[in-house]
Amino acid sequence: VDELLLIPGPTPVPVSVRQAQAGPMMNHRSEPFAQILREVLGGLRWLCATRQPVLPYASSGTGALEAAVTNVLSPGDRVLALSCGAFGDRFARIARSYGAEVTKIDVEWGKAIPPDLVAHALEQDEYRALLVTHNETSTGVQNDLTAIAAARGNHPALLLADAVSSLAAIPLEMDAWGLDVVATASQKALRCPPGVAFVAASERAWAAHREARMPRYYWDFTITRDALEQSLAQTPFTPPVSIFYALQEGLRLIRNEGLQEGLARHRMLGRATRAGIAAMGLRSVADEPCASWAVTAVWLPDGVSAGQIVCPMRDQHGIALAGGQGQLEGKVFRIGHLGSVYPADILRCLEALERVLRSLGLTVPEEAGVRAAQQLFDEEAAGVA
Amino acid sequence: VDELLLIPGPTPVPVSVRQAQAGPMMNHRSEPFAQILREVLGGLRWLCATRQPVLPYASSGTGALEAAVTNVLSPGDRVLALSCGAFGDRFARIARSYGAEVTKIDVEWGKAIPPDLVAHALEQDEYRALLVTHNETSTGVQNDLTAIAAARGNHPALLLADAVSSLAAIPLEMDAWGLDVVATASQKALRCPPGVAFVAASERAWAAHREARMPRYYWDFTITRDALEQSLAQTPFTPPVSIFYALQEGLRLIRNEGLQEGLARHRMLGRATRAGIAAMGLRSVADEPCASWAVTAVWLPDGVSAGQIVCPMRDQHGIALAGGQGQLEGKVFRIGHLGSVYPADILRCLEALERVLRSLGLTVPEEAGVRAAQQLFDEEAAGVA
Repeated sequence: VDELLLIPGPTPVPVSVRQAQAGPMMNHRSEPFAQILREVLGGLRWLCATRQPVLPYASSGTGALEAAVTNVLSPGDRVLALSCGAFGDRFARIARSYGAEVTKIDVEWGKAIPPDLVAHALEQDEYRALLVTHNETSTGVQNDLTAIAAARGNHPALLLADAVSSLAAIPLEMDAWGLDVVATASQKALRCPPGVAFVAASERAWAAHREARMPRYYWDFTITRDALEQSLAQTPFTPPVSIFYALQEGLRLIRNEGLQEGLARHRMLGRATRAGIAAMGLRSVADEPCASWAVTAVWLPDGVSAGQIVCPMRDQHGIALAGGQGQLEGKVFRIGHLGSVYPADILRCLEALERVLRSLGLTVPEEAGVRAAQQLFDEEAAGVA
Repeated sequence: VDELLLIPGPTPVPVSVRQAQAGPMMNHRSEPFAQILREVLGGLRWLCATRQPVLPYASSGTGALEAAVTNVLSPGDRVLALSCGAFGDRFARIARSYGAEVTKIDVEWGKAIPPDLVAHALEQDEYRALLVTHNETSTGVQNDLTAIAAARGNHPALLLADAVSSLAAIPLEMDAWGLDVVATASQKALRCPPGVAFVAASERAWAAHREARMPRYYWDFTITRDALEQSLAQTPFTPPVSIFYALQEGLRLIRNEGLQEGLARHRMLGRATRAGIAAMGLRSVADEPCASWAVTAVWLPDGVSAGQIVCPMRDQHGIALAGGQGQLEGKVFRIGHLGSVYPADILRCLEALERVLRSLGLTVPEEAGVRAAQQLFDEEAAGVA
């Protein structure tokens, strides 16, 4: 039996997606590959709800964040980084590495970024860009990107969104919400292996790009777009061909499920996970209104280390969970419910977690977690929720 | 029947390597993945003949070149770029993009970089680095890196080598030759799918890195090394897990064949390819002494376009060849004999090429190409060559 991968990424890769990778290698500058490229990038435009081109990169999600920053900014530009966790901190660090003058606002880990704080902060300076993490994987908090975009109002700051762990798990509408750059990657809700990241830019961001002087070559939007727009669509540098085979299949699965249905499933899995842990006496780091549809961070019970939960879950129950990151290391463990994860997986996880907690001497009402989650699934199935 | 991929990369991926990718996704921060990472990086150290750590990146080979440049140089540094083709030009362009003061010496395409030219050029300025493409894929020329490294003598310039299409196809000994940075990638002689690139740096390069001020985050050597050196070896950003499965198997195949045996095979395939095309009345762009073991660029016969050869080779014979790049576009076609390519593949290619040439109205002695190549294979098998 394969390990059940409930970390916040990479996520479980369905068998058909895994096997798609085993196809024969092909010429990446050929019509058959151009067709795959167009299909995959078309799928990403649909998921991002944008009319803009989506640019692919051979990289992790962090590479996409670096591409977002370096393509629309110049050294010395004032940037407002809103951080509520480790990935928000990373976004800010990337901008600083390239010479942006970054003002970072740290929201307490476990809380979401308050949209009024954004409106207020933007009044203080001539910011060129606003960095926001849509889903903060380290704390299990999702930010209200719609409200943050609305709070920006007519301020000219570009809104750069880290959607690495949110796209296709949490609603995101790039054009309708006025997001200027959206960055994402293959190994989260796209249910594909890691190796390809994507960036889309608004017309305003493309205009900024033409003036932006941060150094770049590999990440350069223009170089990538020019290659894609050739009569034979291609990437400027060799793409991860086999991961594109996987993306083609992964997107097919997403279309088959339906995007709205997939988003609803993520919402349901998040609710069921939180209901389950609450019934076992554990607490989610995130408050309910901002709790992530993609990952749940759970406070460790007093006197229990992350390893005391993560290790037996893995070794005795075959379930991979994650520990904490940054400030939350040693304080939380995390359950990913992202990508190709279904109710049965969450029930299996909660059942195993109950045994682990009990083996640590904690008092857990019998089957409380599983029952609470099951009840939620039943209600959703009955259309009650 | 799968297409026979004789382009200069991606190269044919053996079935066992392709299938390795289909394994279940795993936690990239776990002991099982750490073992794969250590095994793969150990294999790369062996191939590079270095005691230095090898750093992996989720990227194409171009990303590794960018990592090489940005980690050891500062804006304004004087850099000597030796270019004899499209990839030499690209290496120079990357250094310029990040603010290096680049002096580019253009060697005629089809010729190798003369080592005395290097010695002479280095005397002219206080260069901080020397950029060299080991195997110039665009022209089918391999440079004599040993002689170039020797020509540098005691000059303090760091020698940055693009070994993307050379490593494991053409001899390279990083430590013995005194190379300071070696950059390579998964999709060439490593016979794996594209998606992972590697960089190794000498002690001098690591010392330069500590002072180097070109901006970087994703490519930062220190960030990557620190993650690898944790008790649980890992990459700082999500690695392309399934490509690492492929690399594990690809390296196993390379060890099974033997590195020296594999290098000898590439040398033989290059000689046989050139013997074959010569016998059909075609000419290699590269002179014999510097002709690449990995790829052969062939001058197009008068009045024949690259498409007139590449298209029927692909559509009627199932063999992918490449056209020309840059200055050589419309003047040459290219045959890759790199990675998992064997004598039977070259014979099949030459046989098909003969038919295509004849269908274009060219006079080709019957079976001349195949016989010349076969004779060379026979001689090598008999130990004559």
